[in-house]
This record gives sequence, structure tokens and C-alpha cells, in this order.
Amino acid sequence: MAHRGQWRGLIEEYRAFLPVSENTPVVTLHEGNTPLIPAPAIAQQIGRGVKVYVKYDGLNPTGSFKDRGMTMAISKAKEAGAQAVICASTGNTSAAAAAYARRAGLKAFVVIPDGYVALGKLAQALVYGAEVIAIEGNFDDCLNAVRTMAQEYPVTLVNSVNPYRLEGQKTGAFEVVDALGDSPDWLCIPVGNAGNITAYWMGFCEYHQAGHCQKLPKMMGFQAAGAAPIIQGHPITDPKTIATAIRIGNPASWDKAIAAQEASQGAFNAVTDEEILEAYRLLASQEGVFCEPASAASVAGLLKVKDQVPSEATVVCVLTGNGLKDPDCAIQNCNNPIKSGVAPNVSAIAQAMGF
Amino acid sequence: MAHRGQWRGLIEEYRAFLPVSENTPVVTLHEGNTPLIPAPAIAQQIGRGVKVYVKYDGLNPTGSFKDRGMTMAISKAKEAGAQAVICASTGNTSAAAAAYARRAGLKAFVVIPDGYVALGKLAQALVYGAEVIAIEGNFDDCLNAVRTMAQEYPVTLVNSVNPYRLEGQKTGAFEVVDALGDSPDWLCIPVGNAGNITAYWMGFCEYHQAGHCQKLPKMMGFQAAGAAPIIQGHPITDPKTIATAIRIGNPASWDKAIAAQEASQGAFNAVTDEEILEAYRLLASQEGVFCEPASAASVAGLLKVKDQVPSEATVVCVLTGNGLKDPDCAIQNCNNPIKSGVAPNVSAIAQAMGF
Repeated sequence: MAHRGQWRGLIEEYRAFLPVSENTPVVTLHEGNTPLIPAPAIAQQIGRGVKVYVKYDGLNPTGSFKDRGMTMAISKAKEAGAQAVICASTGNTSAAAAAYARRAGLKAFVVIPDGYVALGKLAQALVYGAEVIAIEGNFDDCLNAVRTMAQEYPVTLVNSVNPYRLEGQKTGAFEVVDALGDSPDWLCIPVGNAGNITAYWMGFCEYHQAGHCQKLPKMMGFQAAGAAPIIQGHPITDPKTIATAIRIGNPASWDKAIAAQEASQGAFNAVTDEEILEAYRLLASQEGVFCEPASAASVAGLLKVKDQVPSEATVVCVLTGNGLKDPDCAIQNCNNPIKSGVAPNVSAIAQAMGF
Repeated sequence: MAHRGQWRGLIEEYRAFLPVSENTPVVTLHEGNTPLIPAPAIAQQIGRGVKVYVKYDGLNPTGSFKDRGMTMAISKAKEAGAQAVICASTGNTSAAAAAYARRAGLKAFVVIPDGYVALGKLAQALVYGAEVIAIEGNFDDCLNAVRTMAQEYPVTLVNSVNPYRLEGQKTGAFEVVDALGDSPDWLCIPVGNAGNITAYWMGFCEYHQAGHCQKLPKMMGFQAAGAAPIIQGHPITDPKTIATAIRIGNPASWDKAIAAQEASQGAFNAVTDEEILEAYRLLASQEGVFCEPASAASVAGLLKVKDQVPSEATVVCVLTGNGLKDPDCAIQNCNNPIKSGVAPNVSAIAQAMGF
């Protein structure tokens, strides 16, 4: 009988590299194992034998790479006896936190600024059963509130300061190496809070030390031009970009991201919203891969610095989230208008089709 | 070096079972390989040692099981020299057709009734680069139009009449067997056009013949009560249900679905929209799995006939689509209101959290 077995989620698959023990209750939705998809249309724009792949982390269970960190954070919270978790987030973090917490039988509290968040952004957190608390204040007030609540009450903080999240996220690098047989030459990645670039670098280094890859990639981080504190060298008070998932003015993992870039001889660059949207449309309409706008920053960045890619190099672009998270962006940014009012006969339809 | 390799998409993985040859250009987004996730909260409602899993096909590249059929349909269309494909669809089929066609370098035409389709439903098809043609007529007129166009022009029809789609979809059964080591005792599946239940049964039978499983499952099909032609025994002129993906009054694969049910000693049952929504909320808020309303019909059905499940049985419920396809449904059907206007101090937040 051909019993291939199946992927058991990233904690079981990469247990030797993660801070878990036999006492850790593994809370999993079988996250990870996302496809590394060849991107021939992007490669063609670069030429010179360069091979390009996209790591489509939008196919994680809640639609983003945050699931990699959250399986770790929630498993460790449950191991420690937590009854509830809390975070300040209006996007991918709150969705992942709610799904894993509820699966673990924990309460999930999400704190947001009152009146500033569109309901659509919270659809996932709500359906997963999060309890959403909207406080009078801005997002910084929310962050302060959840930190204080986690100190004074029996709730575990699962915002990016939770150290287990980067541990889970580093498995993205493991999967890239497992798929390619070695590290790529370049790893292109969107940079917002800078946790993911930090985690990927950790992952490549740990796998390298363990002998699973022979080389290390250059870490190429890309920020949105209107939210590019690392490139500008100072925090941005009012970051602006269509790529909401990386609209961050003062990254939590700033220093670690710089360290990854320096150690890997990589670089940081900024891409405009126009460049991001062009890459977003290219990915969907030529590669067949629909990602969040923030995800497309990695491809936009690669194309921006394409002349620096060594000939014959292998490049991986991380696509952090699923395009279905933001359908309005898709409708507003596609180039092909609907041809309406077509008569229901063959000649009219043929004409509309261009025959 | 631990080079695990990676999933290459279902055509390469199951090539021996599919009508492809070395001349077939494989068009793939690495679809398939979706997780089979234990569902302990659902199992607990049944008791008696029953094990329940959900096959979460919403994690396919365009968010539904349609990708399984479309990788086959588009690869074969390209092999045959097609320059374009066409379908009449407002949902998952049009998204999958557009993504795979564009990846293959083919044009994708989607024909819809003028004025009857919300733009949000078309977001994916549009972003993937489909050319949408809205004709004056109803959905039947659209179906007739695409059939005629495919006969008279060099475009390949990829609606459900395309025979390669069921061939691809049957791989869902292969994956279930590969994960469990045998067929489950029950396979619960939503039934709209009845193609997927037909394909799964084909898959189990072919795998059984090849010696990859020792038993065959009972095929348990579930229709929405307002769109239940197979249960009522006659076509439904005006099918109604919140589960739009199975809102079909006259299934294309009606006879084959009946044959699968009879050969497997399974059954068809209807579930109400209320039962579907209850299962939808249960899946999200207790299992952490967010699916389309239509997908939840499989779980709603299982819970409706739970007393008929043999003790210690293994049951797989197929979740055909990703909940992110229909965020409005999530917002309208979650039970937990947002607590707003909370003062930004510890005691007020603690009170809102129930401490």
C-alpha cells in the first residue's frame, strides 16, 4: 500500500530546530509546506539565465505567513497554562492569533483603535471567534494596552514581541532549502516590522550550521517608499502605502534586520506603490499567483534592482499573504474592464472577444 | 544534505492515473497537497470514538478545489494548441480558469449575465486577467453561448462539461488515502453540480483497483435544502441558498452522483441554510478552519446524520473553498459583537475582557 503520509505541520516537521519538548501541546492547522512556484514571466524580465521562484505563503491556513509564528506562540502559551491570548492588530496577526487560540481552546482578545478600522479587515478575526475590543485611542495606545494587560492579567501577548513567533517563521527558510536542495542566491522579502526577514535569516543560518545547505543567500529587503524607515534611517511618523501589511514606521526588529542584511551582504531598497501594484498585477495576470499588495513588494523590488542579479542566479521572492485578504484592491487595480451590454448572439460575442 | 524535494503539483505526483503523456505541457501552480486536518470539536459532538478530518481544499492556489480540475483542463487545452479558453461562471470556476489560462499564456474569456453579478465575485477572475463579457440574458443563455462559441471558434470550453476536470478532481481522493493509509469509512461532500462527488468516487475506485487502499468509503452527499434536486428527485427552477457554490437546480453530473451513492451504499441528504451556517461558525471558531458556506454543508450534513455513523469510524468532510472568498458572509454571521468605546485604561479594558 502506498502510504505517503502527510505533512504534519511545521512543529512536527522541524521539531529538532524549535524550542518545543514532548510536553508541548502542539496546536497546528498543518501550516507551512507552502508551494515554491517557478515564476517564468518574472525571470524573463531579468534574463541572463536567472531563475525566479515565489514562496507563496498566502496558502497557509489563515492566508498569511503569520501562521508559522502563531503555531509556535499558541502551542507555547498553552504549554505555559494560558487561558487567553491578546494582541493589537487589525490584519494578519489577529486572524492567525484567533484561529490558533480558538483551536487550542483559549480565548483570543484583539484590541483595536475605536472607529478607525473597517469591518472587512476584521472579518477573519471575528469569524474565528476573537473578542474584539475597540478602545478610545490610536494604535500605539492599543499596543501599550495589550502589553500592560499581559503583565497584569493571565493573558499571553502574541504580538511580534512574542519570541516564539520568529522561531516558527524561520521554517519558511527551511522549506525553501528543502525544495531547492540549497539556499537561493538571493532572498527577496517585504519588510514592515522586519520580523520575517530576521526569521528567514535565522532559518538559513541554522540550516547551514546543521549542514542542510552549502551556501547562504543575500537578504534583499524591500520597504514601501512611503513607509521606509530602515532605508531613510529614522522612524516614520505617518507611514503611507497601499501595502497595509508593511505600513509600519518604526519596525520592532529593526536592528536584527540590519544585522541580517549586513551579515548576508544584502541590501535594503524602497519601492513605490506604483511599482508594487505593477508587480501585483504581473504576478496575478502572468504567473497566476494572487497575493496581498505588501507581498508584491518583494517582486517589485527584484525587478527594480534586476541589473544587480548575477547571471544564472536563483532568486526566491517571499509572498507573505493571500490576495483574497484584500479583494477591493484587486477590483480597483485590474486593467481589464468588463465588456457589458453584449447581445446574446454568436456574432456579437465573437466581436466582443476580438474574433 | 536533507533535500526533501517538494510537491510538484498533482499532474506530476499522480501522472500514472491521469490522461497525460510526455507531450502534455504541464500547467501547474503546485495545486493539491492540501491538509487533512483533524476536527476534534466535531468528533466530540458525535462521540463513540468517531474520528473526523476535514480536507481543506480551500488552500489550493486560487482558493478552491476547482484548481484540481483546471490544471488538467488547461494543460490539455494547451497540448491541443488552444489559444484561448472560455467558461460561464461567476465564482470559483472563473477564478481557476483565469489563473491557469493566463499562466499558460492563453486568453481567458468569462461570460456572465449582464447586471446580475456583484463585482466582488469577479475580483479574482479580473485580477488574474480574464476578459469578462456580460451578455444580455440569464445564466442559461451564458452556458449556451459558451458552448456555441467553443464549437465555432478556436476556444476551449472549460466549464464542467470539460472531461479533464473530473480527472484532476479525483486526485482529492488519492490524497485522502495517501494521508490516512486507506479510504475513510465515510466521505462527506457538498453536492451542487455533482462533479466533485463523482470525481472523488472515481478516485477511490481507481486507487482501490491499483491496490492503494483496501476499502471504499460510503459517499455521503449533502445538498442545500433550497437547492436539492437530487434529494427531491426533480430539477429546481429557482434554487435558493446562502451556499452560492452549490446553488444549482439541475446538476450536470446527476446520474454519475447517483451511481456513486448507490455503488458505495451512501446517501444524499439536505441541510438547511441555518444548519450550514452553524457548521460554518463551528469550523471557524472551534477548529480554526475558515471555509466557504457551501463547504460547511459537508460538516452540517455529518452532524445531521451523526447517529448513523458507525462507532470508531473514520470520517472525512471535504471543504471545497476558502472562506476568504466570501468575507461578507463572515461578518454577517459571526456571533461576537465588537465591544467599542472602551476607555484606554487597564480597568476598563479588563472589564471589557471579563476579568
